[in-house]
Amino acid sequence: MVSLRLSALFISLGAATAVTAATLRPEPVQPITPHQVTDAAKVELGKKLFFDPRLSKSGFISCNSCHNLSMGGSDNLASSIGDRWQQGPINSPTVLNSSLNLAQFWDGRAENLKAQAGGPIANPLEMGFTHELAVEVLQSIPQYVEEFKQVYGNANFTIDEVTDAIAVFEETLVTPNAAFDQWLKGDDEALTDQELAGYMLFKNSGCVACHNGVNLGGSSYQKMGVIEPYQTDNPAEGRSAVTGADADRFSFKVPTLRNVELTYPYFHDGAVDTLTEAVDIMGRLQLGRHFTDQENADIVAFLKTLTGEQPQITLPILPPSHDKTPRPIPFD
Amino acid sequence: MVSLRLSALFISLGAATAVTAATLRPEPVQPITPHQVTDAAKVELGKKLFFDPRLSKSGFISCNSCHNLSMGGSDNLASSIGDRWQQGPINSPTVLNSSLNLAQFWDGRAENLKAQAGGPIANPLEMGFTHELAVEVLQSIPQYVEEFKQVYGNANFTIDEVTDAIAVFEETLVTPNAAFDQWLKGDDEALTDQELAGYMLFKNSGCVACHNGVNLGGSSYQKMGVIEPYQTDNPAEGRSAVTGADADRFSFKVPTLRNVELTYPYFHDGAVDTLTEAVDIMGRLQLGRHFTDQENADIVAFLKTLTGEQPQITLPILPPSHDKTPRPIPFD
Repeated sequence: MVSLRLSALFISLGAATAVTAATLRPEPVQPITPHQVTDAAKVELGKKLFFDPRLSKSGFISCNSCHNLSMGGSDNLASSIGDRWQQGPINSPTVLNSSLNLAQFWDGRAENLKAQAGGPIANPLEMGFTHELAVEVLQSIPQYVEEFKQVYGNANFTIDEVTDAIAVFEETLVTPNAAFDQWLKGDDEALTDQELAGYMLFKNSGCVACHNGVNLGGSSYQKMGVIEPYQTDNPAEGRSAVTGADADRFSFKVPTLRNVELTYPYFHDGAVDTLTEAVDIMGRLQLGRHFTDQENADIVAFLKTLTGEQPQITLPILPPSHDKTPRPIPFD
Repeated sequence: MVSLRLSALFISLGAATAVTAATLRPEPVQPITPHQVTDAAKVELGKKLFFDPRLSKSGFISCNSCHNLSMGGSDNLASSIGDRWQQGPINSPTVLNSSLNLAQFWDGRAENLKAQAGGPIANPLEMGFTHELAVEVLQSIPQYVEEFKQVYGNANFTIDEVTDAIAVFEETLVTPNAAFDQWLKGDDEALTDQELAGYMLFKNSGCVACHNGVNLGGSSYQKMGVIEPYQTDNPAEGRSAVTGADADRFSFKVPTLRNVELTYPYFHDGAVDTLTEAVDIMGRLQLGRHFTDQENADIVAFLKTLTGEQPQITLPILPPSHDKTPRPIPFD
């Protein structure tokens, strides 16, 4: 009886997959594939580290402080609050679906999530710590030592294993099954007429030239302000800070539009609070197009169909510090 | 078949309960009863509010920032970090099992969790906001309005409903089934010989005079420094700030010892990092007793049996701000 039922299930699953593949719409955007965890222990360790404020000098700031998984993987602030309440230089990008980007940070200076994860820990404006001190803290906590040993076969772990585990956790943070993905997979009922009209306008007016692929962005660097210059007080140079090429000045990694309803405020300087304003500015500056109020509303309605299933995160219980663990320094 | 199995289960559960009641040891400490949720929607709403940094002026600090449910319901800092990185005046007490305390805050100035919840929101040193502005933010978010309407039958909610929901969530944060509770319920194998020796010493030397009841504390106010004065730079006056009585000066609510392994550093000023040091100081100042190294180690071993099952929290997904939602002010 059990085996019969299982067989029926497999047949049914096989059929469903076949139908999906056959009906995937030929669009410049593709649906997100749910993440398959291959090393659950490493993901669990990475999750602990992601939530552990002991990776900061103050003991108060964790990865989740600025990439809050309750808030679209962002902090919903124009620029982040760092160690000693210092103001960060740029808007904190969402960690959701970040594994789908060609590189990390607005200027792409980290080639992958592992390289990115080490950045904020040692940035004096962010977590304000050093890799050496962060590892010293973790090495002093017996339960962490045991977990690193089990996951990496080595109790003498370094920042390499720390950032690897964080990156492997972050790879799980994809948001499949957005209404738009369901439509891409053939469900005609998944979008309203307005949402579909918004997508058609998004595609036909040229937004999709940059915001394409699985992540609707994250696959190229583009100049901010093509037709008209973008006015900002933010001093970020963009891609030229990495390449040194003057042609790359003010060129930024195109941000993903996945979950964009949740990741306000917008642009690298976080200057814009609403999607309505962001769509208006993008239309004018990048495409030389003034969207009417109705067109703008249609595009915004479409953008809200990009909110996918948010990762279900069970809050980790962090291993307590040992008597010998170096203590945080929240105040000088 | 199903009903037969269910009947067997009920019989088995009934028998287990009867055995437990009969074998509960007659000790001055009682086990924690697991919390029964009666209004799941209210708990869920309260959880969102507990994790929502939009209850702070900066949009960065939530209840969970200082009562971190990954870290024993505390922040593991001597004193908390508040709005603009201001230093809080006192050690942040754990929110775990706080519903079992006779009152809230170190000086007991809030009679219950609901009264407590409003404090930090409006404290300029903590979340730095006002009740009016916090409610204005929440009222601007359609999903919150809908949830308040469903839970309280009223879309025109005030700070009363906000703090009520937070308190009802906090009531769920109990930590049953610590090893010591299993021993209290009759399981002779639940404690090692050392842990049991530690408890006997804890009881017979007088620690239990203040740290008793279900919460091993939280049921009385006691002077800090009975035999010898406690030396501290912290200006907190204790209970006299509430009663005005000079006799209450330096009298504080006895902190719970539940999960004390997780809630370092210790005392109202957070001056002590380790249980070893805390036990030594308490012995000398409160009891006039110098515990030997072995006695101290035994008591510490017992204290670690008070770590219960930590609440399993699925991180809430917060409803996004509306275009009209007032924005946080993280920097002036």
